[in-house]
Amino acid sequence: MSIVKVGNIEIGGNRVIVAAGPCAIESEEQAVTIAKAVKKSGALIFRGGVYKPRTKRVSFQGLKEKGLKILETVRKETGLPIITEVVDPRDVEKVYRVADIFQIGSRNFQNFPLLVEVGKTDKPVMIKRGMNARLDVYLSAVEYVTAEGNERILLCERGINALETHTRNTLDINAIMALKTVSTFPVFGDPSHGTGGRSDMVGRAAMACLVVGADGLLIEVHNKPDEALCDGDQALTLEQFDGLMMDLKELAATNAVGRII
Amino acid sequence: MSIVKVGNIEIGGNRVIVAAGPCAIESEEQAVTIAKAVKKSGALIFRGGVYKPRTKRVSFQGLKEKGLKILETVRKETGLPIITEVVDPRDVEKVYRVADIFQIGSRNFQNFPLLVEVGKTDKPVMIKRGMNARLDVYLSAVEYVTAEGNERILLCERGINALETHTRNTLDINAIMALKTVSTFPVFGDPSHGTGGRSDMVGRAAMACLVVGADGLLIEVHNKPDEALCDGDQALTLEQFDGLMMDLKELAATNAVGRII
Amino acid sequence: MSIVKVGNIEIGGNRVIVAAGPCAIESEEQAVTIAKAVKKSGALIFRGGVYKPRTKRVSFQGLKEKGLKILETVRKETGLPIITEVVDPRDVEKVYRVADIFQIGSRNFQNFPLLVEVGKTDKPVMIKRGMNARLDVYLSAVEYVTAEGNERILLCERGINALETHTRNTLDINAIMALKTVSTFPVFGDPSHGTGGRSDMVGRAAMACLVVGADGLLIEVHNKPDEALCDGDQALTLEQFDGLMMDLKELAATNAVGRII
Amino acid sequence: MSIVKVGNIEIGGNRVIVAAGPCAIESEEQAVTIAKAVKKSGALIFRGGVYKPRTKRVSFQGLKEKGLKILETVRKETGLPIITEVVDPRDVEKVYRVADIFQIGSRNFQNFPLLVEVGKTDKPVMIKRGMNARLDVYLSAVEYVTAEGNERILLCERGINALETHTRNTLDINAIMALKTVSTFPVFGDPSHGTGGRSDMVGRAAMACLVVGADGLLIEVHNKPDEALCDGDQALTLEQFDGLMMDLKELAATNAVGRII
Repeated sequence: MSIVKVGNIEIGGNRVIVAAGPCAIESEEQAVTIAKAVKKSGALIFRGGVYKPRTKRVSFQGLKEKGLKILETVRKETGLPIITEVVDPRDVEKVYRVADIFQIGSRNFQNFPLLVEVGKTDKPVMIKRGMNARLDVYLSAVEYVTAEGNERILLCERGINALETHTRNTLDINAIMALKTVSTFPVFGDPSHGTGGRSDMVGRAAMACLVVGADGLLIEVHNKPDEALCDGDQALTLEQFDGLMMDLKELAATNAVGRII
Repeated sequence: MSIVKVGNIEIGGNRVIVAAGPCAIESEEQAVTIAKAVKKSGALIFRGGVYKPRTKRVSFQGLKEKGLKILETVRKETGLPIITEVVDPRDVEKVYRVADIFQIGSRNFQNFPLLVEVGKTDKPVMIKRGMNARLDVYLSAVEYVTAEGNERILLCERGINALETHTRNTLDINAIMALKTVSTFPVFGDPSHGTGGRSDMVGRAAMACLVVGADGLLIEVHNKPDEALCDGDQALTLEQFDGLMMDLKELAATNAVGRII
Repeated sequence: MSIVKVGNIEIGGNRVIVAAGPCAIESEEQAVTIAKAVKKSGALIFRGGVYKPRTKRVSFQGLKEKGLKILETVRKETGLPIITEVVDPRDVEKVYRVADIFQIGSRNFQNFPLLVEVGKTDKPVMIKRGMNARLDVYLSAVEYVTAEGNERILLCERGINALETHTRNTLDINAIMALKTVSTFPVFGDPSHGTGGRSDMVGRAAMACLVVGADGLLIEVHNKPDEALCDGDQALTLEQFDGLMMDLKELAATNAVGRII
Repeated sequence: MSIVKVGNIEIGGNRVIVAAGPCAIESEEQAVTIAKAVKKSGALIFRGGVYKPRTKRVSFQGLKEKGLKILETVRKETGLPIITEVVDPRDVEKVYRVADIFQIGSRNFQNFPLLVEVGKTDKPVMIKRGMNARLDVYLSAVEYVTAEGNERILLCERGINALETHTRNTLDINAIMALKTVSTFPVFGDPSHGTGGRSDMVGRAAMACLVVGADGLLIEVHNKPDEALCDGDQALTLEQFDGLMMDLKELAATNAVGRII
């Protein structure tokens, strides 16, 4: 089992790492408010998108460089390491200066030039599984990063495309278990995308990821979900996230699970 | 929320009901041995197939009427109510005499003459979701039973067909949560089929079903999985099942889950 | 390559056999009108359902025995052999008396008691591929029929469940080609279900089935699609079917296709 | 219906345009040999990849800039316009100098920075449908190109991911028909990827694309498929392609199809 270190956080060990934050950075106030709250609740990493690959072009596309500055502020004010998505190989350098972990989204899991570019850096890379990627295809994509010398990989199951109409995606907990048997990289679960659009399911989906063995969780949290510029329908409120963290800690501490959060 | 009563067991209430037993009844000794063991571990219902719908015709097709007699013996010796699959409308009467709960398998979830036949009886019916059935199609099939006057329905998520090669099926925990919002019937999870062929995943998948809100679990257990005539690769040993029940009880008792087993 | 004979029609030879008729038999007048018309246009087999397995129980379920009598009349008046679906093993005997070919629908492709029952007869059986059945699983189901001694099998591709929202099903022409390489049974295409709900696509889908090598076509035709009790949205009018048959004959006669219709 | 002009070729009109060539450019000799042959057989566009996005990193990744030079030579020697894939936004300028049509592969159909970059140019862009993209999601991606001012769009159906084990992909001819009703852009079919890995099916799949209404065909051809560095198992030989073109011309000329090739 690989351990990926981010500052003094060890991912892939006994502690399950929760990364939380909004889908998209919208303003400094929004970001700092959420970051302070999720930190207080026990999140160890702050997530927040500034380059947003959206299905529809008219959707909010992220604050881009202005957002990167806000992420810097968040880290200064909270000390939390930052995970943020990069979608364009030309942005890798800029994102490198701010991010502690690169996130490669599911749409880009086979964007090989992008994978090569982050592979040339020395920062951890979370590669989300493609929406219809078999595990062997997924892990083959990961090799584009490791072959460049960067073996600080985090895997992430974020839901597949199946027949669902009740949720946008189908969280595949089997994949979390299977990835732990065919790879040595830490595996995150993303219950927010995994239940796509159903914030009422996120908490239980997060608990499911935990009990099947995920090494980390990626959870979308917003101080005002109703006003969110991106995926508000799957964001937890600060209060809901705080309650969820208590639940997760309680579950993690059972003999059945045997982890720490 | 409907409560379905089986003897003095209430399904759909706070207690999560575990039904356990072999894929197929192979002999009286096998059945009674397993039934006594799972009862001791806390299972409240015994499952065991005697009419086996198998993909391949050369596979073991079940002991049929001889198996029904064994099921009667199991109930006499253990007091456990019996759930067993019926696949042919002409067998409903025979199975009725022995079973406490009819099981309709995923291949037959739209076998309407069969659904009508069990709908005419007064015994509970577990209808497994079809392998690629959207929830609205699944619940439309259930109406073939209820329209006959039998509203003692148990739903069951048992895995969908997706892209998987690591497991035979993909357990869809989103469906468990969604079914609880669009229907009032109790919902079971079947972690054995849901992880199809991977007994090493069954325990964790069962825990996932529990934490997302399943009202019951259907688990395959065998005293000698290596010698099982059916699906031995997904059966838990008696010891594994006993360990799992302790884990499930511990998890159920947390505030996060708040159930009893 | 197997040849299946129905009267003096040979299925699986150079001639591509068109079976046409309504989704459901609604009245003698409707059935006879359609049968005479499709015969005149060149159909060699009449299709018409009297036992209708419908997703929703409130949908028209077919005329059942009354419908069987109408099918007898159709054969008397037109001489066309009849293909009709059987869904209940208890109906096999009744249907046997009228049908020239048993049809097993996609929902029942793994209804093993039903397959065994038609396998005991001496009449051809068309087994439609399940909506999400891999070809090996499909052909394994066929063995339940052949093992009883009935090797007069007709395969049929009728569309799979994929991600479509533009049509109810996705016609899988690759499957038609693949079935011809892994099996010796004649293969039909069902462009009506394969494009589910889009009568504007049926003709072109039928042509596609022809050019990739289908040995037969199963096409839904109705004299008044707007008033049809079942799947009117995918039925061709008598005029459209007549035009299609001319197109199919023209295509079949090319060197590129090299068949007769 | 939009017409996209490439030199004096009109795509989207009555003539069905065939683009043919190898999966990957391997050498000048290979490229020129194939280009001359496919031109002689009636192809109007030459296809050949020089930037190859491969599932596995150890697979041949294309000749890159050296390949672009070969493509220039091909055009000089044959006069055929060139379609070639671009995978990295940083390569758009280089590819622009050589290509007549940009190809965006299915893995990159939601690579928005890449789409924006080709959208800023004045050359036609073929965007392949993603392997599991619903049509609305596909067309939403296209808007990233048109919003930049480039409306010279070619759509392309290249197979979806379904349950297949007999082919790598499932050609979705319904999608070709549906795209023609929900969009005005010309629609290509790609029978080579659509039957993934089965050169014995490519010809019939191409005929199917033609008869359902495709405005163009993208076909992989190699002078020595057994020695091809990429996807040789789905390449036609020069002779097979020549025979196919005769078949396609014959079919196109029927009244049933009513097109020219």
